[in-house]
Amino acid sequence: MDKETLIQAEKVLRAARLKGMKIATAESCTGGLIAAALTEIAGSSDVVDRGFVTYSNAAKQQMLGVSARSLTEFGAVSEATAKEMAYGALANSRADIAVSVTGIAGPSGATKSKPVGTVWFGLAEQGSAPIVAHMVFENSDRSEVRSKTVKHALSMILNALDV
Amino acid sequence: MDKETLIQAEKVLRAARLKGMKIATAESCTGGLIAAALTEIAGSSDVVDRGFVTYSNAAKQQMLGVSARSLTEFGAVSEATAKEMAYGALANSRADIAVSVTGIAGPSGATKSKPVGTVWFGLAEQGSAPIVAHMVFENSDRSEVRSKTVKHALSMILNALDV
Repeated sequence: MDKETLIQAEKVLRAARLKGMKIATAESCTGGLIAAALTEIAGSSDVVDRGFVTYSNAAKQQMLGVSARSLTEFGAVSEATAKEMAYGALANSRADIAVSVTGIAGPSGATKSKPVGTVWFGLAEQGSAPIVAHMVFENSDRSEVRSKTVKHALSMILNALDV
Repeated sequence: MDKETLIQAEKVLRAARLKGMKIATAESCTGGLIAAALTEIAGSSDVVDRGFVTYSNAAKQQMLGVSARSLTEFGAVSEATAKEMAYGALANSRADIAVSVTGIAGPSGATKSKPVGTVWFGLAEQGSAPIVAHMVFENSDRSEVRSKTVKHALSMILNALDV
């Protein structure tokens, strides 16, 4: 885990702790790295409630309640799926805020409209409108797409916590 | 992610693919690192079904069906909890084999009988008796306990796949 990510993870934990908020994660392309970054920090257990690593579509549906319609109509890497993943993580946890990521880390899986590095993010918070974001991490290999995705997801949580 | 772990992850994926088996993970102290190691490898989506990052006790109960009795009588870091986590991951996924880890990564959380570095592992496979293992990773900091736990969990899957 690189230093920058760990510093960011510490900031997220501190901000959430200050607000008495718990965090859940819903990860596809990062496969657990966001939860791993947060829990690398000692004492994270008072903030991190749980994480959903929904690598398969079946997992997205069963663990997070992502709709079959969103998956078939828009695909696993889409705004609709990211939003439903974040909602699902909030609904199926004790967290106050949940972040979701779904993307194409590569090297395979790209389509014309979704190149390698395409990632959709979702952020759901109790009592707030959901936030979505879309990034294309260009010229990045699989490992870089994943680590950039982790950093962006952590920054979205930080922003939502108003820090 | 260190090279040794990635080589091991690749071996696990290859062995599972050969047998047509899917994998699920149930992680407490590693917080998603086992799933992250497996999914760091390109093409892992045909083998990795999902991961449960059950950091809180509530998550262990709700996501994996760990019994309140095991948690209160033996604790979150125990043979009983590790076994129930692995069973729960199998029962609540489409995986054929599931590995679980629950331990004390430190620096806090230790007790007299459970020093920092204490980790219980569980392995559940469709149609086989469950396997449990117990390790104490001594003289290791939080990050080392976690990475050693990932390696041991991957080696348990490899052994179960008879490689």
